[in-house]
Amino acid sequence: MEESGRLLLKAAEIEGMARERRVHFLNPNAVRLRRSLGDRVGLTKLGVHLVEIEPGRVSTEFHIHYDEEECVYVLAGRGMLELGDETFELGAGDFLGLPAGKKAYAIRNDGKDLLVFLLFGQRLPHDVAEYPRLSKRLFRHRGTWSLADLADLSDPRDSRRGA
Amino acid sequence: MEESGRLLLKAAEIEGMARERRVHFLNPNAVRLRRSLGDRVGLTKLGVHLVEIEPGRVSTEFHIHYDEEECVYVLAGRGMLELGDETFELGAGDFLGLPAGKKAYAIRNDGKDLLVFLLFGQRLPHDVAEYPRLSKRLFRHRGTWSLADLADLSDPRDSRRGA
Amino acid sequence: MEESGRLLLKAAEIEGMARERRVHFLNPNAVRLRRSLGDRVGLTKLGVHLVEIEPGRVSTEFHIHYDEEECVYVLAGRGMLELGDETFELGAGDFLGLPAGKKAYAIRNDGKDLLVFLLFGQRLPHDVAEYPRLSKRLFRHRGTWSLADLADLSDPRDSRRGA
Amino acid sequence: MEESGRLLLKAAEIEGMARERRVHFLNPNAVRLRRSLGDRVGLTKLGVHLVEIEPGRVSTEFHIHYDEEECVYVLAGRGMLELGDETFELGAGDFLGLPAGKKAYAIRNDGKDLLVFLLFGQRLPHDVAEYPRLSKRLFRHRGTWSLADLADLSDPRDSRRGA
Repeated sequence: MEESGRLLLKAAEIEGMARERRVHFLNPNAVRLRRSLGDRVGLTKLGVHLVEIEPGRVSTEFHIHYDEEECVYVLAGRGMLELGDETFELGAGDFLGLPAGKKAYAIRNDGKDLLVFLLFGQRLPHDVAEYPRLSKRLFRHRGTWSLADLADLSDPRDSRRGA
Repeated sequence: MEESGRLLLKAAEIEGMARERRVHFLNPNAVRLRRSLGDRVGLTKLGVHLVEIEPGRVSTEFHIHYDEEECVYVLAGRGMLELGDETFELGAGDFLGLPAGKKAYAIRNDGKDLLVFLLFGQRLPHDVAEYPRLSKRLFRHRGTWSLADLADLSDPRDSRRGA
Repeated sequence: MEESGRLLLKAAEIEGMARERRVHFLNPNAVRLRRSLGDRVGLTKLGVHLVEIEPGRVSTEFHIHYDEEECVYVLAGRGMLELGDETFELGAGDFLGLPAGKKAYAIRNDGKDLLVFLLFGQRLPHDVAEYPRLSKRLFRHRGTWSLADLADLSDPRDSRRGA
Repeated sequence: MEESGRLLLKAAEIEGMARERRVHFLNPNAVRLRRSLGDRVGLTKLGVHLVEIEPGRVSTEFHIHYDEEECVYVLAGRGMLELGDETFELGAGDFLGLPAGKKAYAIRNDGKDLLVFLLFGQRLPHDVAEYPRLSKRLFRHRGTWSLADLADLSDPRDSRRGA
C-alpha cells in the first residue's frame, strides 16, 4: 500500500494494473493472470483478486481448504466448474461459495474468451489445503509451507494418545 | 444452508432471490435491498452481499469498523462515495477497500438507476464500529450489541491503571 | 524480555523481583502486589502473575470477563472467595477456574498473612468485562479501553435491525 | 464439566482426583501422571494440568510448539530441564516460560521423589510442534493430527510460487 489513504480504485485504474502471471506449483496448466485489488488498498485479512484465465487453462490445481473460506463471483467469460465429483457450467453473474472443508474445486476456461472472476477469501495465519487428485496436503502456517504426500502422514493417536 | 452441497448459485437463481429490505438503526434514509449470497451457500466467516441502493438513498450511516475489514465492488449504477473528509464518484468496476480503522465511509445513490454492488467482509465474533457524525460507538461481541454515546465512555486508565 | 533466551526464572530470582503495586481503577481497596512472570520471560498470549494480597485487601473489583478465560491457584495464605452469589474459603492448593461469561468473582484476604496466588489468563486483543456491583461495563479492544455505565448502553436492534 | 457451576476445586478434592497416566506417542519413557484442573472446571481455551513425573521419567519428548504458548510452575521435587542446547536444575518455585517458537524443552525427574508441576498453556484449534531429536513435525488442526518426518516435507515455493 505505497500510497496511504488510496482506498478507492477506479475501474480505469484497475484496467491498467499489471497482471501477475501465477503458475500453480503443482500444475503447470493452472495459470492465473492476477491483479490483487485487496493488496493494493491495504487489506490484510481479506484477499481480493481480479483473476483472468486464458482459454484452455485452469484456475488452480483441484483443491480444498480446511481453514480458509473462499468465494468466486464471475464477471465475464465462460468456464467449467469441477466441484467435488460434479461439474457445472459457469458464466457471468454466477457465484460460488467455498466454506472450509466442504468440497474441492477447480475452474477450467473451456470457452474462447478470457474468463474473468473476483476471488475473495480469508487470509489466516494458518491453513491446510489438500490436493485430492495428487494425494498431497499443504500445511501453511506463519509463513512456513510444508507440502507432504498423504502416504507420508500418520496420526500418532492411532498407537497411543499423548502430548 | 438448508440444502447441503448447494455451493453454486447461478445468475438466474440470484436474480430471483428475495431482496431483504434493511433500514439502518441510526439512519432511516440508509436502506439496503440485500441478497446474502454468502449465507445462502453456507459461508460463516465471510459476509458476501449483493446490495442494491435506490436513487436518493444511502448505503449505511457514515461509519468505520475497527476490527472487521470490508470492501465494495460496484456492478452497476452510479453513486457518490464519502470517504473520510473526501467525496468521490463511483461507477461500475470501481473497487473500494476498507482496512479496519482507516476511514469512515458511506455511499449515496445520486443517479437515476439502482446502484448495485458486492459487499464483502470479515465476520468476526467481535467488532467495534463508530458513527462519527452521530458521536456514537457500537460494541458488538458474541451476539451482544452495546451502543453508546462517545460522551458516556471514559478510559479508566486516565486515573489509575489496573485490572 | 530484555535478555533473549531467559525463559527460566529460578525461585530465588522470583523472590527478588520487585512487586508492582496495582490499585484497581474502580476500587481503592483492591490492591495487588504483582510480579508478572509471564512478561519477564516473553509470553504474550498468556498472562502469568504471582499475586500477593495484604490482609484486609481484595484482589479486584468483583467482575466477570466475557472473552478471556482466567484461573487462580493458591500458593499460601487464606482468603474468602466471592463467586456469583456464593462465598467460599480459600487456602493453599485450591484452584479456581473462570470460564468466560460464567460467574463474577473477587477474593478477599481475611487472614493475618499475605495471600499468595498464581493468576493465569488469556491475553486477547479484545475483551468485555462487567462490574455487576457498580453496573459498569468495560470494553477493551486493541489498546482502547471504554468504560460505560450499563444505563448508558442500549441494543439498537430493539428498534430496527441493520448494519 | 458435569457439575455446572463447580468452578472451585479445594485442595483435598484435587488430591483425590484420579491421575491419568499419559505415555508420549514418541517416547515410552515420557510418562505423565496428570490431573486436568482446567477440564474439570470447564476451561476450554486454557489447558491447566497438575502433572507428576516419577523418578527416572521425562515429562515429554523434547519438543517445541510454534503456535501455542506454554509455561511450567514447579510445586515439589527436583528435575533437570533441557532447554534448547542447555540444561538447568529445576526445583520448587521455579518458573519456565515457553513462548511459541523459541526453544525446545523436556524435563527429567532425576531426583528420588515425585516431581510435581503446574502446566499451563493455550488451547488453539491449530498448532505445529516439532521433535528435533527425532526430526519429526506434528501438524494439529481442528481435531486432525498429521505426523511427518521432516525429510518428507518440502516447501513448494522453492520451485514456483502460487496458490
